[in-house]
Amino acid sequence: MSAHITTLGFDADDTLWHNENLFEEHHKKYCQLLAEYHDSDVVEERLYETEMRNLELFGYGIKGFTLSCIETAISLTNGQIKAEEIRRIIDYCRQMLEHPIELLEGVAETVEKLAKEYRVLLITKGDLRDQERKIAASGIAHCFDHAVILSDKNVESYSRALRKENIPIEQFAMIGNSLKSDVLPVLELGGHAFHVPYRLTWKHEHVEKSPSSHGRFFQLDTIRNLPALLDKITYRKVD
Amino acid sequence: MSAHITTLGFDADDTLWHNENLFEEHHKKYCQLLAEYHDSDVVEERLYETEMRNLELFGYGIKGFTLSCIETAISLTNGQIKAEEIRRIIDYCRQMLEHPIELLEGVAETVEKLAKEYRVLLITKGDLRDQERKIAASGIAHCFDHAVILSDKNVESYSRALRKENIPIEQFAMIGNSLKSDVLPVLELGGHAFHVPYRLTWKHEHVEKSPSSHGRFFQLDTIRNLPALLDKITYRKVD
Repeated sequence: MSAHITTLGFDADDTLWHNENLFEEHHKKYCQLLAEYHDSDVVEERLYETEMRNLELFGYGIKGFTLSCIETAISLTNGQIKAEEIRRIIDYCRQMLEHPIELLEGVAETVEKLAKEYRVLLITKGDLRDQERKIAASGIAHCFDHAVILSDKNVESYSRALRKENIPIEQFAMIGNSLKSDVLPVLELGGHAFHVPYRLTWKHEHVEKSPSSHGRFFQLDTIRNLPALLDKITYRKVD
Repeated sequence: MSAHITTLGFDADDTLWHNENLFEEHHKKYCQLLAEYHDSDVVEERLYETEMRNLELFGYGIKGFTLSCIETAISLTNGQIKAEEIRRIIDYCRQMLEHPIELLEGVAETVEKLAKEYRVLLITKGDLRDQERKIAASGIAHCFDHAVILSDKNVESYSRALRKENIPIEQFAMIGNSLKSDVLPVLELGGHAFHVPYRLTWKHEHVEKSPSSHGRFFQLDTIRNLPALLDKITYRKVD
């Protein structure tokens, strides 16, 4: 089976640059802060519950996450947590927002190379300001036609975004670390998807079983293998 | 002077629906909460300082504002504020995010009418998720070609957005309540701007003097007067 792919969409967090490791680091500090009140598994469980309850209202991103952290800390300590400790949670937030961008291994060369052959978009979700800051600081912003920042990644939002960009779905391939956000909705719409797993996956992004769209779904160990794989499965239109 | 305007950009908060009144309400409750520690003018001043310091990192929107409120409260009380009081600040945040949308007087009819004659965009700034929720709940989403949500409104971001939408600036008019965000950058780029003041203006949006771009800047008491004014200043291309 051969495909005519013209446009590549790259997820950003944990696909182009490290992100989940910042949350991992934050969780450690947060659990330490609350260690005198509860074991870390209780803290983690309650925090996740709060996050899920607030997700519809707060959306994805560090600021909403921080508000959930504060709320959980107050509830878990029956209001005994000190204001100074809450101030530290806000400091963690600021540290995450200010953190330098660290590209994943192989990303810069691969994206530079593919940008010469394809229309390349960055398609991400989360806080508008924070995502824009990361793109600007990434050093590879010039490779992208532009960035599309969605409040969520699902069949509806991909469909709307691709229609707005005038991209036929059969000519589109998405590359990302999340089966739930980057792979499944794009396959459902009829596009191609390349899954490049990250070391860590946020619980909310877990899915039960792997996709099975034969010929349109591919798994990669590293983004470095993407150009060769694209060469193999695509044909070029002769202009 | 006659202009050929094809596209109207509407600001959202305090132009189409009430917003600043929610912040006014919030400020009252916040000052009451801290009344045993400080007078309200001290509270207001310190909160504004915190907001400005955090603006670059947090951006516009209710979640960043709430984090600034918590930070200010801790600092103003030297850490004496109770966790329960901080929980109330987060509750205010949630109430603001969940607040029903109240259209300003005359908006629905005016936008409906203009959408038949012009390409109509919604151009707003702030939290992606929150702005999308408000648009969806507004009852007038169908009038807009689509919504453009920016992290900030300035010469660069308008310029980029209009280029992306393929809108020649001389055919573009922006309608909004903020001289700083809706009027001045658009006039500077060479477009038209209609200022419809709201009862309240956030301190950060204040500007010293009124714009003076003769023939491209207009002041309106109510959005109801917009169609007649547009009729007066524009000519129609005969297809």
